[in-house]
Amino acid sequence: MLKGYTVPLSPLGKANLVAAPPWHYSGDVIALEFWTDPAAANATLPPGLTPDSQSAGHVLALFVDWQFTAQDDEFLDPARYQYREFYVLVDAMYKGRPVAWAPYMYVDNDSAMARGHAQGYPKRLGSIFQTRSFAARSAASAPIERGTRFGASLSVHGQRLAEGRLTLREPIETPPAALLKSTVNRRYFPRLTAGRHDDPAVNELVMAVTDDLQAVGVWTGEGDLRLPEACGEELHALAPVRVGSGYRFSMSCSISDLKILEDFTVAGKG
Amino acid sequence: MLKGYTVPLSPLGKANLVAAPPWHYSGDVIALEFWTDPAAANATLPPGLTPDSQSAGHVLALFVDWQFTAQDDEFLDPARYQYREFYVLVDAMYKGRPVAWAPYMYVDNDSAMARGHAQGYPKRLGSIFQTRSFAARSAASAPIERGTRFGASLSVHGQRLAEGRLTLREPIETPPAALLKSTVNRRYFPRLTAGRHDDPAVNELVMAVTDDLQAVGVWTGEGDLRLPEACGEELHALAPVRVGSGYRFSMSCSISDLKILEDFTVAGKG
Amino acid sequence: MLKGYTVPLSPLGKANLVAAPPWHYSGDVIALEFWTDPAAANATLPPGLTPDSQSAGHVLALFVDWQFTAQDDEFLDPARYQYREFYVLVDAMYKGRPVAWAPYMYVDNDSAMARGHAQGYPKRLGSIFQTRSFAARSAASAPIERGTRFGASLSVHGQRLAEGRLTLREPIETPPAALLKSTVNRRYFPRLTAGRHDDPAVNELVMAVTDDLQAVGVWTGEGDLRLPEACGEELHALAPVRVGSGYRFSMSCSISDLKILEDFTVAGKG
Amino acid sequence: MLKGYTVPLSPLGKANLVAAPPWHYSGDVIALEFWTDPAAANATLPPGLTPDSQSAGHVLALFVDWQFTAQDDEFLDPARYQYREFYVLVDAMYKGRPVAWAPYMYVDNDSAMARGHAQGYPKRLGSIFQTRSFAARSAASAPIERGTRFGASLSVHGQRLAEGRLTLREPIETPPAALLKSTVNRRYFPRLTAGRHDDPAVNELVMAVTDDLQAVGVWTGEGDLRLPEACGEELHALAPVRVGSGYRFSMSCSISDLKILEDFTVAGKG
Repeated sequence: MLKGYTVPLSPLGKANLVAAPPWHYSGDVIALEFWTDPAAANATLPPGLTPDSQSAGHVLALFVDWQFTAQDDEFLDPARYQYREFYVLVDAMYKGRPVAWAPYMYVDNDSAMARGHAQGYPKRLGSIFQTRSFAARSAASAPIERGTRFGASLSVHGQRLAEGRLTLREPIETPPAALLKSTVNRRYFPRLTAGRHDDPAVNELVMAVTDDLQAVGVWTGEGDLRLPEACGEELHALAPVRVGSGYRFSMSCSISDLKILEDFTVAGKG
Repeated sequence: MLKGYTVPLSPLGKANLVAAPPWHYSGDVIALEFWTDPAAANATLPPGLTPDSQSAGHVLALFVDWQFTAQDDEFLDPARYQYREFYVLVDAMYKGRPVAWAPYMYVDNDSAMARGHAQGYPKRLGSIFQTRSFAARSAASAPIERGTRFGASLSVHGQRLAEGRLTLREPIETPPAALLKSTVNRRYFPRLTAGRHDDPAVNELVMAVTDDLQAVGVWTGEGDLRLPEACGEELHALAPVRVGSGYRFSMSCSISDLKILEDFTVAGKG
Repeated sequence: MLKGYTVPLSPLGKANLVAAPPWHYSGDVIALEFWTDPAAANATLPPGLTPDSQSAGHVLALFVDWQFTAQDDEFLDPARYQYREFYVLVDAMYKGRPVAWAPYMYVDNDSAMARGHAQGYPKRLGSIFQTRSFAARSAASAPIERGTRFGASLSVHGQRLAEGRLTLREPIETPPAALLKSTVNRRYFPRLTAGRHDDPAVNELVMAVTDDLQAVGVWTGEGDLRLPEACGEELHALAPVRVGSGYRFSMSCSISDLKILEDFTVAGKG
Repeated sequence: MLKGYTVPLSPLGKANLVAAPPWHYSGDVIALEFWTDPAAANATLPPGLTPDSQSAGHVLALFVDWQFTAQDDEFLDPARYQYREFYVLVDAMYKGRPVAWAPYMYVDNDSAMARGHAQGYPKRLGSIFQTRSFAARSAASAPIERGTRFGASLSVHGQRLAEGRLTLREPIETPPAALLKSTVNRRYFPRLTAGRHDDPAVNELVMAVTDDLQAVGVWTGEGDLRLPEACGEELHALAPVRVGSGYRFSMSCSISDLKILEDFTVAGKG
């Protein structure tokens, strides 16, 4: 019997891209709130989600340095499991309820990419960096205090897609609101059989189930964000028309479930 | 309407990991034939495939430098679409017919990884290199002629998983036999809903449909291959007990279809 | 006694960045000729070189896929020694003689970077790609024939610095003229002693000595090149005002010597 | 006038690999103390250093996540300037004084590599990871407290060269002693002129001058370290025969000077 949660299933179940849930995460976040052209934000919404008229064009961009572990001490193998991430959360509505929708998402690790696909996050590979904060003071240490600046960037296959900046002003109690909303994703796995390339084998609208979400050490301040135009990409269609507050915090959570909201998959395999 | 063949589906359909088929490939291959412990080879077979008693433990390892294009001149964007690959093909039987089965496969590109998942190839990320042959002669050019040596390697998250060598002896008419067999894969996409982690949303035994397969400039010679033990991996369970012939050739093909052999998916979404 | 040509010198001399010359190279080249603002080109010239008034602002950009070997079969270890390169050659004069000068140069390999520094090439790390030509025909194979298009790119730390295109028109006898000129470099190694940061320990104007230079399979055609603006870089100051011919060819050479033209080093260590 | 501290010197002085000192650093360190065969440790010593008979074979291995800045807010461009490092410090004597000597050193960034060469550190490129500690608690967060485990690894061109582990036991006042010794390096820049490949242009024994060195949050505990054998490398010659204590701390310092101890350079350029 082959074992594993994803491919490759294998005799011992150690070679798979992704070990079975629960999955545990802890990381540092730079989050930048902005407003884009509402039409551009709405154009990214999947079937089942509608625009949030209360917050037209409101988006949150997140740069995250993540540490991951499942049940097998994966955090002790950082070459394989530590990763960095960039994504945007667009305000949307699901059946009258405000939710967050992630149209674009990038990570620098294959296991994170495959976990994302199982969750319905549309992860591709990218190269993500954020200024870190270190305990030993020097001009390079970026302490968590008023006035400290942070930089962050996303590049994909050698093109710069996002550049962010944050200047800390003050600690606050809660992280940006988009993080506290439910996140709705689209699980999608295509068919390759001739004639059915437009008829995915999996096409589900799903809601993330997040356990033990914590955000600690939240600071807010002035943010800035650029989403430069890049060939073969569409993130820049969400370019900011106005940038709001920025945030820096640490975050942790666990994942072991997912709620199926709608199943759009056409019945029948083949 | 969002467009695209895979995630992320997007307003223009340009941002997706994988453009719709047909997919066209051309590349250079170093292939090394070997025999492993038959029990180790058989232990990798999925439901529906049985051991090939005529060739117990026979495996082909392939290192490939690939160029890819779909319909949008992707070959002109090599930073995004050129890639390298390593995989092994194990001899197996499907309903009395000899087929090839790929238990482990690695690429250095996210688009190739996602295409592979749609095809049922269990692709993870790796770092793959092979000695190239250049037209301008020098001690570094590795000309295609008797006595020229080639090296090749696979590393995954910083661990060396395979090291191959080939010394060319003579041109031959046909590529290694495993390439001419049908390849049977397992399309597999997990569920994340609690209680259904072992019950994939897609679990199909499939047969690759390959158009216009060409192998040109085939040479054979003496091969060598090491599959060193590595933490968190199982490729080394297929370590050679004997190495056979090696091959170097150029290969091209196109993909726009897939044949579903068996659908093991349990009915009902969840 | 420690052994080696560069750091780290070591007991066996195997761990060094660069083995002792002779160094042998073979590779594939996409070269794009262009004219930039002459003042921008001249501003890159080091002491000892003067502008070439016959070819004001004339530059050649080269994308190269290289294979390297020294005396120890380095071409069999492509993970460590195969590399890709981008550089520009500016027309200049040395004591009345037309020469080529390389103000900016990027490679994706540390051994190539350190060899470059010993030669006086100002190599930094970058990510370089070019469309390859494969023998097995498909829509992805880019055959060497009239009408075939090639793409090429350079990115540095996630910013795109160069994008080139070439459409083949016809074979010709000789490679671009800049390659046949002598190349003049500046060997430069700084001091870190306080008060002497502007007073390098090595500051020599040198002329490359290239053995057995061959260019084969030379084709010419229409080229295109963009050098987009990037933060922390100056390559874009050489942006084309006009693009000339493009070239695709294979090249090989060997290096085991260097001619010192001028020694600007201030006497005395410190 | 061209500007810059290293190549490429350029019109604006922004394109160089390394900006002029002072250089400021802050980072997190996992340090593992061990003893190797004294003959192996002594075999790495350069002219001018002698074995430390009081601590025969004593070595400290360090994995560091660094943030760097010079005078131009480099810490806000982490894609270009943040980096990771591995090195070993061997106990040695210089004229009767205990010092530390770094025979092998790896970083994942070209600017850090070139700074190292100016300082006399024998830096090559590698891929370095360490378990990080995050403020938001989860199974993945690795808090700084008794019993927390950390992993660390070094890979070079796809071969694993070092794997470390640390289990925290208790906070202590001071970092490992090797860090408090003076570090003696060898600045070395080769000649390429024929006949002088063994006669470097720069060959100096130097002592690091480190300003404002701070180590904060020092914890000690049980360490473990493997230095597996790898082709083309010599680090494994220092494989531990016994592992001592491990340490985890944050460290910062600034660099703007270097003391020349001995100049072994043969006079005369050429």
